[in-house]
Amino acid sequence: MTEAKIRPGDCADALQELRDRSPLVQCLTNIVAAQWTANVLLAVGAAPAMVDNPEEAGPFARIAGAVLVNLGTPYPDTAAAMEQAVAAATDAGTPWVLDPVAAGALGWRTELARKLLSERPTVLRGNASEVMALTGGAGGKGVDSVDTPEAALDAAVELAGLHGTVVAISGAIDHLTDGSRVVTVGNGHPLLTRVTGVGCALGAMIAGFAAVLDDPLLAAVSATATLTVCGDVAAAAHAGPGSFAVALLDQLGLLTPAELAARVRLG
Amino acid sequence: MTEAKIRPGDCADALQELRDRSPLVQCLTNIVAAQWTANVLLAVGAAPAMVDNPEEAGPFARIAGAVLVNLGTPYPDTAAAMEQAVAAATDAGTPWVLDPVAAGALGWRTELARKLLSERPTVLRGNASEVMALTGGAGGKGVDSVDTPEAALDAAVELAGLHGTVVAISGAIDHLTDGSRVVTVGNGHPLLTRVTGVGCALGAMIAGFAAVLDDPLLAAVSATATLTVCGDVAAAAHAGPGSFAVALLDQLGLLTPAELAARVRLG
Amino acid sequence: MTEAKIRPGDCADALQELRDRSPLVQCLTNIVAAQWTANVLLAVGAAPAMVDNPEEAGPFARIAGAVLVNLGTPYPDTAAAMEQAVAAATDAGTPWVLDPVAAGALGWRTELARKLLSERPTVLRGNASEVMALTGGAGGKGVDSVDTPEAALDAAVELAGLHGTVVAISGAIDHLTDGSRVVTVGNGHPLLTRVTGVGCALGAMIAGFAAVLDDPLLAAVSATATLTVCGDVAAAAHAGPGSFAVALLDQLGLLTPAELAARVRLG
Repeated sequence: MTEAKIRPGDCADALQELRDRSPLVQCLTNIVAAQWTANVLLAVGAAPAMVDNPEEAGPFARIAGAVLVNLGTPYPDTAAAMEQAVAAATDAGTPWVLDPVAAGALGWRTELARKLLSERPTVLRGNASEVMALTGGAGGKGVDSVDTPEAALDAAVELAGLHGTVVAISGAIDHLTDGSRVVTVGNGHPLLTRVTGVGCALGAMIAGFAAVLDDPLLAAVSATATLTVCGDVAAAAHAGPGSFAVALLDQLGLLTPAELAARVRLG
Repeated sequence: MTEAKIRPGDCADALQELRDRSPLVQCLTNIVAAQWTANVLLAVGAAPAMVDNPEEAGPFARIAGAVLVNLGTPYPDTAAAMEQAVAAATDAGTPWVLDPVAAGALGWRTELARKLLSERPTVLRGNASEVMALTGGAGGKGVDSVDTPEAALDAAVELAGLHGTVVAISGAIDHLTDGSRVVTVGNGHPLLTRVTGVGCALGAMIAGFAAVLDDPLLAAVSATATLTVCGDVAAAAHAGPGSFAVALLDQLGLLTPAELAARVRLG
Repeated sequence: MTEAKIRPGDCADALQELRDRSPLVQCLTNIVAAQWTANVLLAVGAAPAMVDNPEEAGPFARIAGAVLVNLGTPYPDTAAAMEQAVAAATDAGTPWVLDPVAAGALGWRTELARKLLSERPTVLRGNASEVMALTGGAGGKGVDSVDTPEAALDAAVELAGLHGTVVAISGAIDHLTDGSRVVTVGNGHPLLTRVTGVGCALGAMIAGFAAVLDDPLLAAVSATATLTVCGDVAAAAHAGPGSFAVALLDQLGLLTPAELAARVRLG
């Protein structure tokens, strides 16, 4: 069943399911992308809850529909909360997504990312440099990738097999794999890299879809398809990064499942 | 005097007073809504200052015009700062607003909310589930209410009497009470629930109005009226959540007191 | 060489250089302006990285193109990270910018600002009240200035000489000095004060320009010119603070060096 080929209509059904069920997505994320991530989730139809303190992160991961753990700006308190949320999610069977921002470029978070990855996230989402860093590569210079998704695909397949996780590599052409299947999403626009937190918000959207779907690869593909198709529509009408970001939020709210199926380019 | 019925013209005068005096509003709020809250306060005419560390929160509460304490993303450091700010505000006579985000759904913050409520905030602002949780109800599933303002009115009147506070219940029809008077505000649009931090920003606006008015119920009603009327105007021209949020900020800056009086639906 | 008079064409060349090299700017900034600052840097052509925890801030300051230290919402953890980033930047020769938000109004951060200033930042950016507070003045009531740049110029020249720093005083007419030269930038619009974090983002832009230029005064002037010229263009088409902020981001992405040279008013 979960080995089925993913088709545009599956993404459309997934988007409808997300909107019908409006899953509660717990986000342990960074101070840069927190507002944007919440607005992206609200726009697309999910219910964000940024519960990231060490007193509450664990208990909440037991009742949330899914959990996002994003390493953008970790601090001692929030890093402790992340470990507790992951432990509770694992125990309760709550799907969770790891976004190892800037792994490879910075020592402390790379160690934290490796430790969390060994807890077997439902989905690992990152750019090519981050994914490669988690198999021992050198990593990027900061938060931006210096490698292509194509170059990171072998590393992704390896990580998927080792940790039983879906790996979603973001880039010009997104590559996603569960270790046996590989799916590419050909939508997207360079303006997506001129707005901070787009990748971070994608991780949160993947968590939202994973809360309502049994197949985590379909969840990751549907989230990527929805975000990048909305980016295509927004970029067609806006050249500046400010109005593009506003239009992207609009499209996340307005895009219909049928439009998603018609526009997405899966490979 | 403070028992007078609140009329549209009172809200208009309150907005003019806010703009004339541009009160300094200290915000101890969450990482999701901090930027949005500051922009809302600047747009409507107040002066935000996000002073939320334990070294400075107390001293600043003595010189601020009003203080907002919002429990959206509390951490050990900022929770300590909140307690110090409340103690200093109480001692100095600075009005302060408590926004018990997600009270009832999470243990640590529910205890913190109850402790702060016992310090007698000038205004308590929350959704129906949060207000009911503070009288012993079960609370919502996260940050969203599962109850209506109508269902929470008895709890609000009880809390108002117990703690000498005005209670503002946000929802489709906002209900506000000081224990003797009950005011409803019938404006507002569902898009307000698709933008993160709108309720958080309302708490900050209430603090801003409370800084320049003697009647805290009028402050809470005027803030609610201003925000929801601006929401009506913005929603009339924008269907997507991104452009709606931008237009809402515009309207907060452009709305005249006369337009506010003409559009607000008080009950 | 660095004593040369700064001309509009120099600012245009600086903007081209920034876009050609896309410098990595490490930001230790506040929870209010973090997203906006990252979006401003991305729009203008730099690469932001918000690395502000005590485990990583020092090591990253050795590899970043420049560092911003902004005191908007300091906490014990992030204040420690700031001291480590400054020590590492100084040791590695990385240019860094100090933005002493609300210095003078609050005790803890004023002491922190003075301590960091003694480490000789490449550029000190603040409003007039903040700059005056660092020479012993009384400071503002919060984050807003109660003094004019003209009134703070003597203090700025004194600080520039004492600490070997460029001082950039933001205001209606920006005044910038390296102790010997004084440059004014006459662009800008009152709407810039109705959007939170514009000054904070300017500090980050100065860091970006300082990463690619040898003359820190030219870096500060070019950043100020670029931001305020974009503000002029945005304000010509938008009256509300929400759409103005969106248009400002757009202009930061779209402004050409030639347009910058044509519009900037240097004195």
